[in-house]
Amino acid sequence: MADLRFFTRAGPFRLAKLAKEIGAEAPAASSDLMLADVASLDSAGPSELTFFADKRLRNVLAKSRAGACLVSPADAAQLPRGTVALVTASPARSFALASALFYPETPPPAAIAPSAVIDETAKLGERVHIGPHVVIGAGVEIGKGSVIGAGTVIGRGSAIGADCRIGPNVTIAFGLIGDRVIIHPGVCIGQDGFGFVPGPGGHLKIPQLGRVIIQDNVEIGAGSTIDRGAGADTVIGQGTKIDNLVQIGHNVRIGRHCVIAGQAGVSGSTEVGDFVAVGGNVGLSDHVKVGHGARVAGMSGVMRDIPPGETHGGVPARPMREYMRETALLSRLAKQKKAKDD
Amino acid sequence: MADLRFFTRAGPFRLAKLAKEIGAEAPAASSDLMLADVASLDSAGPSELTFFADKRLRNVLAKSRAGACLVSPADAAQLPRGTVALVTASPARSFALASALFYPETPPPAAIAPSAVIDETAKLGERVHIGPHVVIGAGVEIGKGSVIGAGTVIGRGSAIGADCRIGPNVTIAFGLIGDRVIIHPGVCIGQDGFGFVPGPGGHLKIPQLGRVIIQDNVEIGAGSTIDRGAGADTVIGQGTKIDNLVQIGHNVRIGRHCVIAGQAGVSGSTEVGDFVAVGGNVGLSDHVKVGHGARVAGMSGVMRDIPPGETHGGVPARPMREYMRETALLSRLAKQKKAKDD
Amino acid sequence: MADLRFFTRAGPFRLAKLAKEIGAEAPAASSDLMLADVASLDSAGPSELTFFADKRLRNVLAKSRAGACLVSPADAAQLPRGTVALVTASPARSFALASALFYPETPPPAAIAPSAVIDETAKLGERVHIGPHVVIGAGVEIGKGSVIGAGTVIGRGSAIGADCRIGPNVTIAFGLIGDRVIIHPGVCIGQDGFGFVPGPGGHLKIPQLGRVIIQDNVEIGAGSTIDRGAGADTVIGQGTKIDNLVQIGHNVRIGRHCVIAGQAGVSGSTEVGDFVAVGGNVGLSDHVKVGHGARVAGMSGVMRDIPPGETHGGVPARPMREYMRETALLSRLAKQKKAKDD
Repeated sequence: MADLRFFTRAGPFRLAKLAKEIGAEAPAASSDLMLADVASLDSAGPSELTFFADKRLRNVLAKSRAGACLVSPADAAQLPRGTVALVTASPARSFALASALFYPETPPPAAIAPSAVIDETAKLGERVHIGPHVVIGAGVEIGKGSVIGAGTVIGRGSAIGADCRIGPNVTIAFGLIGDRVIIHPGVCIGQDGFGFVPGPGGHLKIPQLGRVIIQDNVEIGAGSTIDRGAGADTVIGQGTKIDNLVQIGHNVRIGRHCVIAGQAGVSGSTEVGDFVAVGGNVGLSDHVKVGHGARVAGMSGVMRDIPPGETHGGVPARPMREYMRETALLSRLAKQKKAKDD
Repeated sequence: MADLRFFTRAGPFRLAKLAKEIGAEAPAASSDLMLADVASLDSAGPSELTFFADKRLRNVLAKSRAGACLVSPADAAQLPRGTVALVTASPARSFALASALFYPETPPPAAIAPSAVIDETAKLGERVHIGPHVVIGAGVEIGKGSVIGAGTVIGRGSAIGADCRIGPNVTIAFGLIGDRVIIHPGVCIGQDGFGFVPGPGGHLKIPQLGRVIIQDNVEIGAGSTIDRGAGADTVIGQGTKIDNLVQIGHNVRIGRHCVIAGQAGVSGSTEVGDFVAVGGNVGLSDHVKVGHGARVAGMSGVMRDIPPGETHGGVPARPMREYMRETALLSRLAKQKKAKDD
Repeated sequence: MADLRFFTRAGPFRLAKLAKEIGAEAPAASSDLMLADVASLDSAGPSELTFFADKRLRNVLAKSRAGACLVSPADAAQLPRGTVALVTASPARSFALASALFYPETPPPAAIAPSAVIDETAKLGERVHIGPHVVIGAGVEIGKGSVIGAGTVIGRGSAIGADCRIGPNVTIAFGLIGDRVIIHPGVCIGQDGFGFVPGPGGHLKIPQLGRVIIQDNVEIGAGSTIDRGAGADTVIGQGTKIDNLVQIGHNVRIGRHCVIAGQAGVSGSTEVGDFVAVGGNVGLSDHVKVGHGARVAGMSGVMRDIPPGETHGGVPARPMREYMRETALLSRLAKQKKAKDD
């Protein structure tokens, strides 16, 4: 059970109703079972819903005391006797939906904190929540239902869409942000990109005249930084999810529905297609193109374009199979050498 | 000498008294020597205390003008004539203790800034210091003697123990924090973990229903981010020290007395034992187990479990000796090839 | 054209006058041409100025409709008929200067926000701008014309020079900062370095008694962290540019006019010479010396000193040519092996 100091639980829900809402099929005989909570496979009790998706947990499943369990059709027969099978194509997906039903997010009430400093030319939509010590500059627009966390600073001219959730201590400037965007604490958006003309007497700063465009349904992790464009814009495509402490350079274009893991960095003017997955701590050089659906293994350094659909890894990143062959070969050679020396 | 614009110096101290408090032995003949400050080996003068621990500095020691020097028994004979030997098993440890005596930390006075916004249901212990523009949510508890820096935001339900030092512009949510915890500026604790169910129409957010537990005497570096658990909690064990810009994913469990260097990242559900040392910029994959007392070299990528006590390095990380053999072999092969080609 | 919600444009400018100010030579016949804006090579129209510096864009240049184009003497003949050539040794440099003329930075007006909390012993220079919710401690000095962004916290004793631009939500402590320094949002300066004496009962904190010195014309990217010295100071030399999410450890000394790319980390007591270039995500070990004008390739791990002028890469970093030879050799060996196995 989630800690009720932090979370508010809804329910209980009738099995039949719940199953319907989360896209699962429940046996008619159990439709009146009342479910009071979601829980993990090992901890769920008779009034709780769990899910089975990781084959390695088969032993845990066999001993489960859960009242009901989301399973794929292929695994339904493995459930212990006392557990009702809720069959679904994606147990993880259905469980995420169930979790959201039991613990619906309750945004803070519509209100504008007296300590917020809001320019008189800013336009605030209906039902916005503006936290304490927020600063909103001239001409800023905040869409209806959006939440701006305490201490967040939004520079002049920026626009934020509807139903966004901006965390505390965020800084946004030169930004045009869509609807239902989630920005976690400490994120910095829209500062100058890192552009200089080098010279013997020092580096000359290049004025950064672009913006940051963040499309609908994007999520940006805590402490991440996104520079504005130098001339063109920096763009994060619809539905893309960015983890914590990620750096996005100026003029970068990230496609739709990408997943970029923690501490990855994307250098200036690089283009990432749709549905790309970038692992943790990856570095992408500047002016690189990563194709639709490509994947980059964690800790890699991408120096050249990656064709659509390919998986690359290593520094410099190369097709994953090549990279793994090289790693395996070097390991074998070193072992042979050692055996010979010993 | 430390800059007195920033630091307040205590003392001078009588040698005998000082030696006793820092676990060193002083020769009786010098017990009345008055020491006025701590200083580095090369800069310390006749009224100052220094220490010798790095053998490479032997030449510097020979020329030292320090009034007294902390040394191990084995090195005591190397001190120059005018310098009193304070013999101790750990000169570095004794010097740290001496530094803390000369420059005792002076927490800001107990006070609650008028500009802080504190929910009426929050409970503040005795002698707390709440800085300007702090925001404290409903039901939050702050233990006695704790300091909350300016601009810090603490979300509803979180609890902070006694004698903590939370820096400015920190964000804490869904967090239960022990006693004597130090959190540096810009840290983000308790935001949603990075959990999604991927799908062709986009990624479905998985509600993150856990907390962040930070045990006693933990220190967390500037700009680091710690996500709350997805179902279970994210836990940082007692006495663990985390450097700047470190990312800790959801459900991670870090043991006691670990040291995690700057820009390391620990992915979701990974478990790190006690007394583990993780180098700078290391990435640990998700669901990995790192055993008690293990060490990971900087810049490594850990994809598999590391047994207790072992040192691993490289990407993917492997036992350090193997990694070094491979590196050396490849270097030699390339040199041979070049010699042949030339 | 830059988005006028965010930028204010000056001009139009007479070609002859503009050319003179940006160090380019214009043909006398065109000196009365009026230029209204800067634009990229592919988008510039007849009243706009662009530049040509990247040979790969020759085809784009051939079709350009730009009114005038900055080019090097060697490329001047390649311009299309309708485009006036402005000849200059560095088109990129002249274009940066032109951009700054068309879009002059307009600092916020001199003002002190009523919500700022400023210690009565702080000294503020003429024409400073202090944003909302700023906190300025005892004895702090802010030089004339400097801008302090909203929510920024400056600890007691720190000094900031003239004409600095400090972004929102920055934290500065124990810092002495020169003139014309730019610090982007979310930066943390001056917190305790990561110094502990390890022991079986836990790690003993070493008091950090130094400062952070940032010299004139330095720029520090969003979310970067710079620890103060342990005894000596942490120093960032004049004109050095640091990108986002960079970590600088205690006692580090960075020389003048260096460029340090995003997510690089410099461990304690390392010394970096003047005009050094450090790539993205690079880690430098502690106590390393990097010589004048050296370069480190992105994603590298520097464990040993780098002599002046050399370029190193890889983990551990070695001379770039060696590193590339090794990478190429391993790749070839793996391909040979595969061909044999197939």
